[in-house]
Amino acid sequence: VPHIDAGRFRADFDALAEIGRTVQGGVHRPTFSDAHLAARAWFLDRAAAAGLETRVDAAGNHSATLRSPAPEAPTLLLGSHLDTVPNGGRFDGALGVVAALEVLRATQDAQLVLPCSLEAIDFTDEEGTLVGLLGSRALAGGLTPDMLQAPRGGRPALLAGLARAGLTEAQLADARRDPGTIAAYLELHIEQGPILERQRVDIGIVTAIVGSRSFKLTFKGTAGHAGTTPMDARDDAGLAAARFVVGVHDTVAWDFPNCVATVGRVTLEPGAFNVIAGEAHVALEFRSAEPSQLDALEDALLFRAREAETLGRVEIEPVGRWEPVPLDSTIRSAIARVSDALGLSTIELPSGAGHDAQALAHVTPSGMIFVPSAEGLSHQASEQTAWDDCLNGAEVLLGATLELAGVFAS
Amino acid sequence: VPHIDAGRFRADFDALAEIGRTVQGGVHRPTFSDAHLAARAWFLDRAAAAGLETRVDAAGNHSATLRSPAPEAPTLLLGSHLDTVPNGGRFDGALGVVAALEVLRATQDAQLVLPCSLEAIDFTDEEGTLVGLLGSRALAGGLTPDMLQAPRGGRPALLAGLARAGLTEAQLADARRDPGTIAAYLELHIEQGPILERQRVDIGIVTAIVGSRSFKLTFKGTAGHAGTTPMDARDDAGLAAARFVVGVHDTVAWDFPNCVATVGRVTLEPGAFNVIAGEAHVALEFRSAEPSQLDALEDALLFRAREAETLGRVEIEPVGRWEPVPLDSTIRSAIARVSDALGLSTIELPSGAGHDAQALAHVTPSGMIFVPSAEGLSHQASEQTAWDDCLNGAEVLLGATLELAGVFAS
Repeated sequence: VPHIDAGRFRADFDALAEIGRTVQGGVHRPTFSDAHLAARAWFLDRAAAAGLETRVDAAGNHSATLRSPAPEAPTLLLGSHLDTVPNGGRFDGALGVVAALEVLRATQDAQLVLPCSLEAIDFTDEEGTLVGLLGSRALAGGLTPDMLQAPRGGRPALLAGLARAGLTEAQLADARRDPGTIAAYLELHIEQGPILERQRVDIGIVTAIVGSRSFKLTFKGTAGHAGTTPMDARDDAGLAAARFVVGVHDTVAWDFPNCVATVGRVTLEPGAFNVIAGEAHVALEFRSAEPSQLDALEDALLFRAREAETLGRVEIEPVGRWEPVPLDSTIRSAIARVSDALGLSTIELPSGAGHDAQALAHVTPSGMIFVPSAEGLSHQASEQTAWDDCLNGAEVLLGATLELAGVFAS
Repeated sequence: VPHIDAGRFRADFDALAEIGRTVQGGVHRPTFSDAHLAARAWFLDRAAAAGLETRVDAAGNHSATLRSPAPEAPTLLLGSHLDTVPNGGRFDGALGVVAALEVLRATQDAQLVLPCSLEAIDFTDEEGTLVGLLGSRALAGGLTPDMLQAPRGGRPALLAGLARAGLTEAQLADARRDPGTIAAYLELHIEQGPILERQRVDIGIVTAIVGSRSFKLTFKGTAGHAGTTPMDARDDAGLAAARFVVGVHDTVAWDFPNCVATVGRVTLEPGAFNVIAGEAHVALEFRSAEPSQLDALEDALLFRAREAETLGRVEIEPVGRWEPVPLDSTIRSAIARVSDALGLSTIELPSGAGHDAQALAHVTPSGMIFVPSAEGLSHQASEQTAWDDCLNGAEVLLGATLELAGVFAS
């Protein structure tokens, strides 16, 4: 029976955390930075050292494959990513890649023959330094030209990054795989939220990747002299924005228990101590796993915005829209069974963050395994998951892989 | 009997509005800009053309004087300022200087001999491009070295500006005048607020210049992932700041009817759509004509700040403090009598904005005459006062000057 080699797994995890390590003890590996390219090279070296087949595709995705001898065997993809946000942590993405590599080695060491090939894959640009989910979208055939024309990190950064990595924009789409060749997709990841820790649960079984919508709102008032304009003669855009921010919180906290909404940016114009704000710019986003909830939340929050404009006006511009992506129920059941067998507690929960699984789920049965994040922190140096939890996650990934290789082989 | 020459007054006002005129129809004359220096030169030219004595003192204050033949006659100062805020309006400051010049010419034309000399004075840097009330404070002996060490516009700008104007920092204080040589100070100014217009009153008699206090507040929360952090696990500094902004408004609107409080700047850190704010920086200022109200308001508003920090913390830094300055009751009575005699309606009101009178009031009886501002607007190109109101103000300034020259002569 294959088993995770805890020492080897830990040594690899620690070696990887040294690549792009920051003085704060985190990791800085934005897509196609020197550290990112070094981490990817390290991954292929480790795979090759284990005798695994290695490959880099047209979107820069890096893979290690344990080939099944079965004719026309489909591939079970085990993935995550080696890029990080700027000054990110050691676990986000890296844990899933190192665990996937360990699952392949454990299977190989046990000389187990599976009806699926196993591929540990490091997807390009999951975090969106350039585009976001760039590699997984390319592989799933979901990369559209407009995503490349106005990418999140700016087009010059995208073109420069591709050149650094030896890739070309024209060939990115060649990374697409025939869905018939893919058995399923499975990913181990840290939760990045506090739910597992709060509920003292070992393993999270992800039900869906939440959808999100984002809006830029501009409250228009009248700029005025802070000393000479009586309170009842003001048309204060900053006050309208503040009422909106409070209203957003209250609406979600009271009426949408499984949703989140955030105002992470507020700017007042002209922005001085002694001038009443004439304009307030507000960044709103909200998320839910349920499409109907997203619609209801949008109605409720934009109603709050219009309510806040007692004297002024508000302009509302949609700037982002992601639909929720449900994950595969067969995979969820397998994760639950494997965890039970290992004596690990589980809950089902949606992922509030985006992941490569949301690109893969459109073309193949996809699932995710979460392990607890200390204090729910992520995307910073203090991101932390207890080593026992990392090991638990790898064991569950291994067990689910073995079970699903049989289920999805044909 | 002296009278305002409406044509001459209007021609001067219009000529001055051309100096530094903006495409929006306002005026851009920051302290010691080319346009400001040109306006000051124009003022001395007009005074000299009228046969008045001219002078520039060590603080750059520009004066025209109609000398009284009485031995040891003190000087009744009639002032305002020719500098503007960036992209300001045509009336703020300019109206008072042009009206003062016209009062001197009207008195001279009527060959009236007064027991006081009359001095029309254009004070340096009233608006605070560099220091704020620079010229009037220097004249009143209230300019302290620390005001020059950390001036509002930055020390390099102050030194460069003084050099442009041919002034030196060391000699600024030489502009101080013996209070025994000053009979009183009188200023005509636009209201810069909506009260006179709303109440359909011709003339405002200023009771006091309000005091103000300003604070920088920093609400500290915990930055977090906008997708993975449930609403009840958040410590959102932006929400704390928003509750504070609403609380400031409600406190003043409900409990402090004659005060104003403003939050004109809010900044969230890190300031992204998908990150819960870890810090919120808030600029607070509030004003009242009553010292006891300022104390009570400070207590009430800082209580609101501490109330907002349900989960986080708040740091409160005082950054400005101006005491209220009551204006002279004898002058207030004179303005009322003169207005009555001219058939003009009056109300008493405090000035919510700062003025040179608040520097002068410490050393000499000081008073201010307000005329209506259309829609209460100021410090912008759309700043507007009906010409009839400007004329009314000049007539009241003339009448009050003639009366007060007798009252304050000895």
